[in-house]
Amino acid sequence: MTDRELDVVGIGNAIVDVLSHAEDDFLVEQGLAKGTMALIDTDRAEALYAAMGPAVEASGGSAANTIAGIASLGGRAAFIGKVSNDQLGGIFRHDIRAAGVKFDTEPSVSGVPTARCLILVTPDAQRTMNTYLGASLELGPDDIDADLVGNAQVTYLEGYLWDPPLAKQAFLKAARIAHQAGRKIALSLSDPFCVDRHRAEFVELVKNHVDILFANEHEICSLWQVDSFDAALQATRGHCEVAALTRSEKGSVILGNGEVHVVDAVRVGKVVDTTGAGDLYAAGFLFGLTGGRDLYECGRIASLAAAEAISHFGARPETPLAELVLAELG
Amino acid sequence: MTDRELDVVGIGNAIVDVLSHAEDDFLVEQGLAKGTMALIDTDRAEALYAAMGPAVEASGGSAANTIAGIASLGGRAAFIGKVSNDQLGGIFRHDIRAAGVKFDTEPSVSGVPTARCLILVTPDAQRTMNTYLGASLELGPDDIDADLVGNAQVTYLEGYLWDPPLAKQAFLKAARIAHQAGRKIALSLSDPFCVDRHRAEFVELVKNHVDILFANEHEICSLWQVDSFDAALQATRGHCEVAALTRSEKGSVILGNGEVHVVDAVRVGKVVDTTGAGDLYAAGFLFGLTGGRDLYECGRIASLAAAEAISHFGARPETPLAELVLAELG
Repeated sequence: MTDRELDVVGIGNAIVDVLSHAEDDFLVEQGLAKGTMALIDTDRAEALYAAMGPAVEASGGSAANTIAGIASLGGRAAFIGKVSNDQLGGIFRHDIRAAGVKFDTEPSVSGVPTARCLILVTPDAQRTMNTYLGASLELGPDDIDADLVGNAQVTYLEGYLWDPPLAKQAFLKAARIAHQAGRKIALSLSDPFCVDRHRAEFVELVKNHVDILFANEHEICSLWQVDSFDAALQATRGHCEVAALTRSEKGSVILGNGEVHVVDAVRVGKVVDTTGAGDLYAAGFLFGLTGGRDLYECGRIASLAAAEAISHFGARPETPLAELVLAELG
Repeated sequence: MTDRELDVVGIGNAIVDVLSHAEDDFLVEQGLAKGTMALIDTDRAEALYAAMGPAVEASGGSAANTIAGIASLGGRAAFIGKVSNDQLGGIFRHDIRAAGVKFDTEPSVSGVPTARCLILVTPDAQRTMNTYLGASLELGPDDIDADLVGNAQVTYLEGYLWDPPLAKQAFLKAARIAHQAGRKIALSLSDPFCVDRHRAEFVELVKNHVDILFANEHEICSLWQVDSFDAALQATRGHCEVAALTRSEKGSVILGNGEVHVVDAVRVGKVVDTTGAGDLYAAGFLFGLTGGRDLYECGRIASLAAAEAISHFGARPETPLAELVLAELG
């Protein structure tokens, strides 16, 4: 793959998801805010896991889900992220490579376990996430493969990388390399609480460094500290070449080339689990963009990929997305 | 739980399932017989896993699935099986306890990893299983808790236990304790190839030691070496107090109390994955039997539990089975 141009390289926390059904009462008992991601330490991870019901394990991580989605669409993609050399790390590595993604980051040998995200899916299909970062905390600038980043049309970064201090440095190194090579930087704001934790830095990034921005309604409102979607939309204009703002079942709004596009959501028979919806939206969008599609088409592919993600348990595609797109858009 | 009578204690291989979608061509390339279980060694497990697509992990094991099903139905159940003290072992222990099952078997500390079953689900929803037994091979007579077995109405054993030599001894010890305490022994024949490997011993068991027998059409035909279901049915009469013979979408036939009952299968909207269908049939049947239901009702509960199992990916119930039974049978 190294001798061909890559479409997208993603950098993110390498996480195995532990998914379980839960009632709303359980979230209340555990003091969890529905639909968001909280960082947890070892003790809390053990206590919460002990209280959770039976679970299934599946490779996850926001940017990693996006990259797996791009590969499923037929794109050329690579991932940079840190697992440990334990069983969950082996599962993560297997799954992302089996999806067709180049993944060669050296695993941690410090003994700190692979990151996991305890995800509670309530009967309304919302997911509430609790992340133990583990070995992800060790991702640093040395893990950034300059050839890989220089060779990719887009380097995609998750906002969650701002939480582990070394990863932020890795993020900035990658952004520098990409821009020096004339490439684009894409960022997902990841989570409204993540935006709260790092607002000043995110505003500076969005204004000065990010070419392609992904955010949902809650995140973009939090970024600009406004309370309506329209206010957030107006605040975003003039920053970034392209911004894709998602609104769940209300679809998405895309800013770019001085235009505004409004894209409807793709209807799903039954929403089973919203885990990965935003990640797969970004996958579809970036696949379209790096394939030379116009912004409206990018939004359509993004919406198709997000609809597939919410129709089943877990965040990685179950149906080859290239076939879905071919059937819908040709 | 020790001060109350248990409904069922299950003894089996403690396995984590690794489930992946696969095309029929893949089974052919890998030389796999669809719908059956093959035992594989470490090298083969690694090679097959490397060739498989992205997967999800979920606790499995035939008898363990049955026991988790009994707990989901509201029964009092315990499990005996051997995991390692690794990450997959921790997942197995969490899931079965979180399902409400008593599970206290000491984990292996030999360094041999927890057993796993690489399961390929083809587009026709059939599952083809490849089991690396790992730490399960270390289950032995010392792991049989005599109080637990003596305190359970039924001790349920999977035929797969005949593969690891020490487990067979554990199986025989448990059967002896149960019968000395005036309790019942139930056996599942597990798999037609497993019957092939151990036919003489299984025939002797069925004729002389087993009170409640579970087998599907292929297994019971293999046991008696006959080629029609009816011939197998006639061969089974007179052995065991109760025999429940399953036939997938053709339903099941139950022998017992000198009667023959014919039970229709419960219709499923879409069959997603047949993994666990037989295990959950046994769960429903044993829950009914230990609850004092008549044989036809036992077959009905069994069919409801099996239908739930095949309506989703993976072998453990996703819906509380007690609610399903209440809704259908009151």
